[in-house]
Amino acid sequence: MPVHCIGLNRGYVGFDFLKIVNGRLFYGDRHMKRFFRTLELMRLTIPQTLEEVIEILEEIATCSEDSFFGLKLFAIPLDSEAADPIPATLSIVPVPIPIKSEEFYKRGCKLVSFEYARFLPEAKSSNYLPSIYWDAEVKRQGAIEPLFHWQGSVLETARSNIFITKNGTVLTPLNGVLKGITRSIVVDLCDEFHLPIEEREFSLEELYDADEVFVTSTTKGVAPIVTVDGQLIGNGEVGEVSKRLIRGYQQLLDHFAFNRL
Amino acid sequence: MPVHCIGLNRGYVGFDFLKIVNGRLFYGDRHMKRFFRTLELMRLTIPQTLEEVIEILEEIATCSEDSFFGLKLFAIPLDSEAADPIPATLSIVPVPIPIKSEEFYKRGCKLVSFEYARFLPEAKSSNYLPSIYWDAEVKRQGAIEPLFHWQGSVLETARSNIFITKNGTVLTPLNGVLKGITRSIVVDLCDEFHLPIEEREFSLEELYDADEVFVTSTTKGVAPIVTVDGQLIGNGEVGEVSKRLIRGYQQLLDHFAFNRL
Repeated sequence: MPVHCIGLNRGYVGFDFLKIVNGRLFYGDRHMKRFFRTLELMRLTIPQTLEEVIEILEEIATCSEDSFFGLKLFAIPLDSEAADPIPATLSIVPVPIPIKSEEFYKRGCKLVSFEYARFLPEAKSSNYLPSIYWDAEVKRQGAIEPLFHWQGSVLETARSNIFITKNGTVLTPLNGVLKGITRSIVVDLCDEFHLPIEEREFSLEELYDADEVFVTSTTKGVAPIVTVDGQLIGNGEVGEVSKRLIRGYQQLLDHFAFNRL
Repeated sequence: MPVHCIGLNRGYVGFDFLKIVNGRLFYGDRHMKRFFRTLELMRLTIPQTLEEVIEILEEIATCSEDSFFGLKLFAIPLDSEAADPIPATLSIVPVPIPIKSEEFYKRGCKLVSFEYARFLPEAKSSNYLPSIYWDAEVKRQGAIEPLFHWQGSVLETARSNIFITKNGTVLTPLNGVLKGITRSIVVDLCDEFHLPIEEREFSLEELYDADEVFVTSTTKGVAPIVTVDGQLIGNGEVGEVSKRLIRGYQQLLDHFAFNRL
C-alpha cells in the first residue's frame, strides 16, 4: 500500500470487526449493514456489494480450521488525494480473539473518563488517535478503556458501548455513539428478559451513582465495570443485571456455536 | 506494512513535510525539530536520532536530479497494540510539489469555516478525518481549505496556519495550533519588515472584519485569502501586507535556491 495514500497519511479508513464461530459469521448481517453504513457516511466506495462481501467472509469462515477468531475489514483509499466519493480497497485480516479470564467477568473492571467526542461517531473509522494516546494513562490506572463524555453526557468507551442500570432500568446512550452490534444484541436480550431499557442521554454523575455499569463489544461481549475514575459503582461488586446479561450473551454464543441459532 | 498495525488501523502516524530546493533542505533544522517534537508528544520512538534523520534527508537531497520537490516523513507504528513509548518505523517518501498559478497569488483564494479543534494540535499527526470529510464541501464552494474555529476562536486551516491584519498589525493564533515552519518564517519576515506582529487569539468576527487574511504552508508559501464563508475580506483584493510577505517569502526561496542563504 502506498505510504502516502489517504488511508495512512490522512487516517481515513473505514473499518469493521466481526467474529467467526464454528465456521459461521456471528451476526454477519448486522456487521455488514453497519460496515456499508460506515462507507456511506465516509463517502467511501469499494468494488464489492454487501452480498459479495458476505460471500467472501462466509468462504473464509467455512474454509478455516479455527473455530473462533475475528475478521477485521478495512476500506482503504489508496489514492493520495480525495475524490468524491473516495474509491477504496477492501482488505480482510483474520485475527485471534483473546479469551478473557473468568476473573475479568467475576471481579469486574475499571474505566477512566476523558472529555472527548469522536468525529462522525456513527462511522467505525480508524480515527483512534486519542484512544491510543490515552492508553498509557488508562493502563497506569489499571483500567481497561478510556470512557468518553462530552458536554456533560456520557458517550462510549474507545472500543465499546456503555450501559448503566438504576432501580431496575437499563440505560444506554442513543446519540453521538457508534451503534455496536453487541450493543444491539444486549438491547434484544433486555427485551427478552423483560428488563426495562431506555436508549437515552445520561450524565457522568448518573453513571457514578448507578447501581451497575457494563460495557459491550464484539471482543469482550458483556464486561462488568465496578470502578469509574476511582469511584466504586454500587457496592463495587458485579450486579445481578450484569451477571444475567453476561450469561445471556454467553448462552447466545453457545447456541450459535452448536448451530441451534 | 501490516494492515492492522496501529498506524493504519488506529490512525496513529507522526508526520512531517519539507521542501528540497536545489539539493538542500529548506529550513531542515526547524522541520526536524518539529518532527521530533511530534514524536515526543505522540510518545513515538524511531531508531534514528535527529542528526541521523537530517543526514539521510541531506543524502536524498544531494543525490536527486530534481531541483524542487517535497519529502514526506512518516513515523509508522507497525505493531497492533500500543506500547509506551510506541516503537515506529521511519518512512521517507519523495513527492512533487505542485506549483501554484500566478492567479492563485494575484486574485486570492477562498476559505470555508467549520467548528472543530484538532486533538493534540501541536503534533503533526495523520489525524485528518474531518479535513478529508469536509474536502468535498470545500471544493463545492470553490475554496482551497477548511478553516477551523473552536469556542469562538479561529485556530488554523486543515493544512496551513492563518494570519489576519488589522490597522497595520499582523495577528496569528498562538495556542491550539500546529506551529508551521512557514508560519515561523513569516513571523521572522514581519520582524525584518518592521510589521507589528502579535501571536494571540482572535475571533471569527475579527477575521471577517480584518483588512487582510492569508495562510501559510510549506506547499503554498504565503497564500492570500479574499473570501471566507462567502464574505469578502476588506475590498476583496489582495492587500499590501500580503503582497509584501508573498514577495518576501519568494525572495527568501530564491536566495536559498542560489545558495545565498
